[in-house]
Amino acid sequence: MGISIRDVLLPDGRTASVTVEGDRIAEIGRPREADVTIDGRGKALLPGFVNTHTHAAMTLFRGYADDMDLQRWLSTKIWPAEARLTPEAVYWGTKLACLEMLRSGTTCFNDMYFHMDMAAKAVDEVGLRAVLSEGFIDLSDPARAEREFRQTRTVLAKIRGLRSPRVRPALGPHSVYTVSEPSLRELRTMASSEHLPIHIHLSETRAEVDDVKKERGMPPASYLDSIGFLGPDVVAAHGCWLDDLEIRRLAQQGVAVAHCPVSNMKLATGRAMPLAAMRDAGLTLSLGTDGAASNNSLDMFETMKITALLHKFAASDARAAPARAVFEMATAGGARALGLEAGEVAVGKLADLVLIDLRRPGLTPTHDLVSNLVYAGRGDCVETVICDGRVLMRDRVVRGEAEVLEHASAIAAKLAGA
Amino acid sequence: MGISIRDVLLPDGRTASVTVEGDRIAEIGRPREADVTIDGRGKALLPGFVNTHTHAAMTLFRGYADDMDLQRWLSTKIWPAEARLTPEAVYWGTKLACLEMLRSGTTCFNDMYFHMDMAAKAVDEVGLRAVLSEGFIDLSDPARAEREFRQTRTVLAKIRGLRSPRVRPALGPHSVYTVSEPSLRELRTMASSEHLPIHIHLSETRAEVDDVKKERGMPPASYLDSIGFLGPDVVAAHGCWLDDLEIRRLAQQGVAVAHCPVSNMKLATGRAMPLAAMRDAGLTLSLGTDGAASNNSLDMFETMKITALLHKFAASDARAAPARAVFEMATAGGARALGLEAGEVAVGKLADLVLIDLRRPGLTPTHDLVSNLVYAGRGDCVETVICDGRVLMRDRVVRGEAEVLEHASAIAAKLAGA
Repeated sequence: MGISIRDVLLPDGRTASVTVEGDRIAEIGRPREADVTIDGRGKALLPGFVNTHTHAAMTLFRGYADDMDLQRWLSTKIWPAEARLTPEAVYWGTKLACLEMLRSGTTCFNDMYFHMDMAAKAVDEVGLRAVLSEGFIDLSDPARAEREFRQTRTVLAKIRGLRSPRVRPALGPHSVYTVSEPSLRELRTMASSEHLPIHIHLSETRAEVDDVKKERGMPPASYLDSIGFLGPDVVAAHGCWLDDLEIRRLAQQGVAVAHCPVSNMKLATGRAMPLAAMRDAGLTLSLGTDGAASNNSLDMFETMKITALLHKFAASDARAAPARAVFEMATAGGARALGLEAGEVAVGKLADLVLIDLRRPGLTPTHDLVSNLVYAGRGDCVETVICDGRVLMRDRVVRGEAEVLEHASAIAAKLAGA
Repeated sequence: MGISIRDVLLPDGRTASVTVEGDRIAEIGRPREADVTIDGRGKALLPGFVNTHTHAAMTLFRGYADDMDLQRWLSTKIWPAEARLTPEAVYWGTKLACLEMLRSGTTCFNDMYFHMDMAAKAVDEVGLRAVLSEGFIDLSDPARAEREFRQTRTVLAKIRGLRSPRVRPALGPHSVYTVSEPSLRELRTMASSEHLPIHIHLSETRAEVDDVKKERGMPPASYLDSIGFLGPDVVAAHGCWLDDLEIRRLAQQGVAVAHCPVSNMKLATGRAMPLAAMRDAGLTLSLGTDGAASNNSLDMFETMKITALLHKFAASDARAAPARAVFEMATAGGARALGLEAGEVAVGKLADLVLIDLRRPGLTPTHDLVSNLVYAGRGDCVETVICDGRVLMRDRVVRGEAEVLEHASAIAAKLAGA
């Protein structure tokens, strides 16, 4: 019988009743009888956000080290702390991230980290949707590559063993500067034969681009294209330094790019992703928060606003990155990137839905709902979250939250060496 | 007997009990008997934010027009709508802004708009602290200047008549390009003789700087210095295009500059305020949200984060605008700008205080409180607000909120011509 949300405002400006049956949106229009009825008056119903680049368990390192040069930050702070990571830490860190995302309206995320079987367990228990890839780094060391393939295989088997309809495994070659060409080729073959998506960092910093150019004679995306790595199953995060030829190649291959403006600004990657050129080329564009160590929030409302602001600033044009285009990146764009039938409030789409409370000072008046969401919205205006047709949060209550905060805090203190 | 907040975390990392007596912080250390006792465990106590550049009643235009070129935005949207403004609209619009600010931890703001006697009434009723200036624009028309002086005098008298200890009148010459030199000189004289602060827009856009240079042979701040306008009672908003000589002059005169990064990025003013040079020159620096039409939020947490991000991006240096410096701008810097004994949790300072709920996923773990506030905080983590020694919000409950939302929404719809 499902869920009926009555008389609710939709992003296109209509007011309608929305019925969910099973894991899908069954009807938009008149109210129907249902097991769960939600009064939608004074509220808006949105597709859940799709966060297409995260390292969820890095919530454990939120605020652990900021305002540092990227290389020093990694080598003196993040890597030593990550060396102390346990499967249990990843489980609780991912649970913490899931809670934060759930509370701010994200229903699906694309995550790369370590011990991802434990992340899968956490996501499955919370009830969110995710694409999970074990980070693969071989640093051109064949012995390390062999270990990484073994670990990737082990984690894949465990995630498949969960048989969760919401958790999908993926492959996670970290980047072109941390993974050898033979491994990249083998991962591409594996992705194609086993229908696994690929999640990779691409063209984040100038140093990466300069190094790859020196070694390969071409920039990172061109190099990946030259070895047959690219395809519509690839989500590439960042893309700050892509050139015009790379943009055309990514578009031709159907690659999706996850834009992470907050992380890029915080770590001072030095250039705004060339959004307008990428849009003109027809690339699939989505948004990501990146991990909580480099953001330090997983709130997609904030990422939407900062996307709109950054591109206006970088282009010296207040018309750049308008609200509707940014909202589309955070929802339908993300769904396209991950091959999901979601990201829109439309009949037949997955029932990954978010109910917003409009009766609050910061969202008053409602001259324009989408403008308010992008420029004045924030996570806490999310009142109720439905994922895969199940209500995961209602009136901001999520069960089991205190236990997660307690475990995650204790583990974070240990990892920091406190 | 006052208020006692027990066992609360302070920004400097101490845990202590804080006692408020009258309008001041009376003791930090051991708990005392008090009329109101607040359990501070799992919470942090901060100075309330000081928002040093607002047009509060513009909440009525939130989301009314975005993603437009600045001049078109003003001439086709904002000015026609403002022409329909009534005193009643300013009253309800300011109340709406006060609610939004209160809920996000701002206890004092520096506001310039029209019908400011009505704004004063709204602020006084809500219980916040504010410096209020009637916007003065004469466009070099002597007849209009005379009307503006009359209006300024009328509003001054009405605000003084309120006899509120929290509401202080100020003078509001809009900018060097909208106010004639004789009027600027007369306002300066009036400010000095009547001890009124001055609130002005300065060096916001390149067009302003180019025009003033053409007309006066020098940039805006140098021009103001040359006519003896500057002093420690001046708060200048924006300062995006200040040059080195102007920065030195502003510092010598003790002028405070209200940095408004969100508005500057949204309206694409083209350049980040030269923060590092201004800090090195010893300028008093504070933060402002600007009005809700050009932001579109009055949440100072967001403005702190975007300050930190913008300067890292603009300087290509992740060490720029570190969390503590930004937090200081939002609190003690703002208090200095407005000449308030506030902005710190310290004995003898005004009891303008904000209690933060730390037990939430987005603020977990607490490796570093100030980092979490700047990079992961947002308005809704504010649980309780005290202004001038009075509790204005407790556990996120503010009395009379529904009435404000209703009136403001109705008036906003009318102003938009709906």
